[in-house]
Formats: sequence, C-alpha cells, structure tokens
Amino acid sequence: MTEIAFIEAELRAVSEYVRDRYNARHEVHISHKIDPNDMLTEVDLAVQERIVARIRDEYPDDIIVGEESGLHELPHQNAGRVWLIDPIDGTQNFVRSLFPAFGVSIAFCQDGEVAAGGVLVPMQETLFLAERGAGATRNGQRLHVSNVTDLTMARAEIDFSVQRDRAATVDTFRPLMEQVGQVRCYCAAVIGICSIATGDSDIYVHVGLNPWDFAAAMLIAEEAGGSSSKLDGSSVQTLSGRQGIAITNGHVHSQLLGLIP
Amino acid sequence: MTEIAFIEAELRAVSEYVRDRYNARHEVHISHKIDPNDMLTEVDLAVQERIVARIRDEYPDDIIVGEESGLHELPHQNAGRVWLIDPIDGTQNFVRSLFPAFGVSIAFCQDGEVAAGGVLVPMQETLFLAERGAGATRNGQRLHVSNVTDLTMARAEIDFSVQRDRAATVDTFRPLMEQVGQVRCYCAAVIGICSIATGDSDIYVHVGLNPWDFAAAMLIAEEAGGSSSKLDGSSVQTLSGRQGIAITNGHVHSQLLGLIP
Repeated sequence: MTEIAFIEAELRAVSEYVRDRYNARHEVHISHKIDPNDMLTEVDLAVQERIVARIRDEYPDDIIVGEESGLHELPHQNAGRVWLIDPIDGTQNFVRSLFPAFGVSIAFCQDGEVAAGGVLVPMQETLFLAERGAGATRNGQRLHVSNVTDLTMARAEIDFSVQRDRAATVDTFRPLMEQVGQVRCYCAAVIGICSIATGDSDIYVHVGLNPWDFAAAMLIAEEAGGSSSKLDGSSVQTLSGRQGIAITNGHVHSQLLGLIP
Repeated sequence: MTEIAFIEAELRAVSEYVRDRYNARHEVHISHKIDPNDMLTEVDLAVQERIVARIRDEYPDDIIVGEESGLHELPHQNAGRVWLIDPIDGTQNFVRSLFPAFGVSIAFCQDGEVAAGGVLVPMQETLFLAERGAGATRNGQRLHVSNVTDLTMARAEIDFSVQRDRAATVDTFRPLMEQVGQVRCYCAAVIGICSIATGDSDIYVHVGLNPWDFAAAMLIAEEAGGSSSKLDGSSVQTLSGRQGIAITNGHVHSQLLGLIP
C-alpha cells in the first residue's frame, strides 16, 4: 500500500470513534501534562495506540513518533522512514468549544522531508490529504490557497500556545498583530494551517511547534500553493524538533517575515 | 406578543435564508465599509431589512438601531423601547472560515437596560435566548457558565477587532495574554460571548464594541450566571455607544479587571 493510501485508510478508520467520543465528551477522562492547559484525554491515547499498531503491522521497520505516551523522541534529522502522529491536535477544543476545532494528523517523512500527510477534521467529516508533488485535496477536491497579496487584507492565525510561550508570542508577533487585516486564534495547528490550504486564511504563525503538530498540515498547505519557513526565513527542518513556524499562502510570506523582529 | 417571543420567531424566520446564502457564499455580493476588513454583504442587508420591517409592523413606536444602512444612530441612554439588531455578526467569518463562526443578534432594551435578547448561530441551528431575570437557554436547554475560578486555567476570547484598534488591543490586554490559561480569537462577538453562557469559555474582552454587537449576547451570558462591565469595572451603558467591554463567567471577573492597565 502507498503511504498516502495508508494514511487515508487510517484516518477514515478512526473517524467514527472520535466523533462518538466527542459527542459523549462530558464522560471522557481528561488528564494533564506539565502545563495544566496541556490536556490529554483517553481519546488521544486510544487513537494514537490504534495508528501506531497499524503502522507496526504494515511498516515494521519504520520509526514512529507520536505526541503521546513516550513516543515523542525524534530520530536524527535525516532518518529514512519516519511517521509523525498527533492523535488529537486541539485537545482543548475537543474538551470544550462552541466549534469542534480539532483534528487527527498523520505525516510520513522520507529522509527528513514530509512526503505524505493527512488531517481529519472529524466533526466536519473533512479529510485533507497531500502527497509531495501531487497536490492537496479536501474530500477529494483539489485545494488552492487564497490570492490575497496585501498584508492589510490578510487573515493571520496567531497561535498563542500555552502560557509559558505567551510573552515570546506577544513580543514576536506584535508588529504582525498591529498591521495584519484580521487576527484569529483557534489554537489548533492543523485547523490554522489547513485553513491556508482551503483559502480561508493566509498566515499561520507559532513561536515553537512540535513536528507532529505541523508536518502533515504544512505539506497540505504547500501542495495547495502555500509557503513555509522558520520565523527567520530559513527552511523548516521537520525532524529537528520544536521550532518557530510561518506558513502562508505564499503571496504574503516575505511581507510577514519582514514584520518578525 | 412578548418581546422574547417576537425575537425567537424572527430569528427562526431568517435561519433558512442565511443558511442557504452561506452555502452559496461564493456568489454573495460583498462590499466594504471604511475599513476594507469591515465587510458588508447582501445577506447583512436583507436580514436587517426583514427584521426592521417586522419590528415596524409589530411595535410601530419603538426605536430601531441596526448595524447597517444608516440605522446606527443611538437614542439617548434612557430611551424607552429600543431594538438593537446585528444582522450578521462575524461577517468576515461568513465570507471565509473553516468554521461558520457568525450569528444573527436581536436585543430589546427597556429604559436603557437589555430586557430580552436572542442570538442565532445559523449553521449549527443553535438558538440562544434570554429574558432579564428568567435565565438563558440554548435550543430550550437552560445554560450555566463554567465553574473555572483560576485565571491560569481560564479561556479568554481576546477580540482583535479591526486594524485601527489593534495597538490599543495589544496594550490593553498584554497582561491578560501573558497570564491567562488559553487565548482564542474567533472575532465574532456573539460567538465569544455566547461561549461564556455555554461554559465553553470564561472571558470575552474587546476595546470598543458597538451595542448591537454585544447587547443580546451579554444578556444571555448574564442570565447564564456571568458578569459584565466596562474595562474599568463600571457598569456597561448599553445605549451610550462604542465601549470597552469585559464579559466573564463571574468567577474570574475581578482577576481579569486587575490585569487591565
């Protein structure tokens, strides 16, 4: 099976389970990581466990990195075949939110580059898929970024992250906050970045994001015509760990970088 | 007909039209106000026109204030019977957004106080209603604010508004951004404030909001157990025009005010 076909099958397979648990979320067990706002539910664990087991079946020699339960050790930057899993990105929004702004993310990296990725937004029954060089789709329809070229008309998702990142977030993005047309913060990387792929937003920035949060969505945005970089303009090194990230529709990328101190 | 029954009937009556136009939003005509991000669609105009006509039929002597088309002149603060209409709050999100975070808002004020209010979130088929002293409901179910008491665990919707408000927003809310548990920005007042009523959020702040944006949702949050004030802690004067607003679950209101310079 190709990696993209595997990703599609696995995301489809977990969709109903996640929807059912979301609809019964008042019963879902929640625990916390070091930061009390960094939440973990039984759903994060069950989804990761299932996807990990299926990768081990299908690709027994591949390296697997997941957000939860001790799988978050990254291999060296050029490792051959690596899977990056975020079972629920936007767990806070799974736990409470008027809009179900969370997703399941699977990325496959070959020699340090994201080669295939998928994001499922379960409550909207939306499946985003991208393979390097082959374009990005939403439920089978080809995606294209917006044609917004002027920063004063652009929409930026500024991800305020957890409390320990907050002062750096305000310092780093203050000029952007003051000059961009519209500001949003759904605080779910997959939602913010896939919104660029659909043309619903133009900029996504975060001062320090983990690879499992952004890898799949970044490829989806790029394959829809978007651009990505670190905040200093250099290339994203997916497997090098937590890093500041800028993903845009491409047209406003250099304007954005010019506003980052 | 009581005012709350009238509000409910009118919001139900426009729901299907708004949903249809949203589903065909790529055809909807969009124009701009002074700020190019302050958008106006044919849907805003049609919804306001219909609601205004129905109020004129039913309550011919009442004063009507609406966001659109020259109806935004406010009466004096203690005017007897006043209706406040925002036909689409969150027009930017109507035009584009992965989540349909917009609503229709109608408030009825008696002697300067909001006495009844309703917010329709059309794409979720959600109807929020509140009458002063009688509680708040979502689709008929009684609402209660969250029991979050600690600011470091609270979720705050910081509304970044349009570009001309942006520097004031960052200056005013920087301590809040740095200390609160979670930050969100949907940039639709009715969504941010109704999220407090449902317990999905704890704080909503804006440096300068118009009465038609907040009046109905504020009553819904208050009747679910929440608190409201201006940013200096004094009482909201609904008909006095644009003002800085803080609406919370009540438990974190004084902690919030302590963080506003």
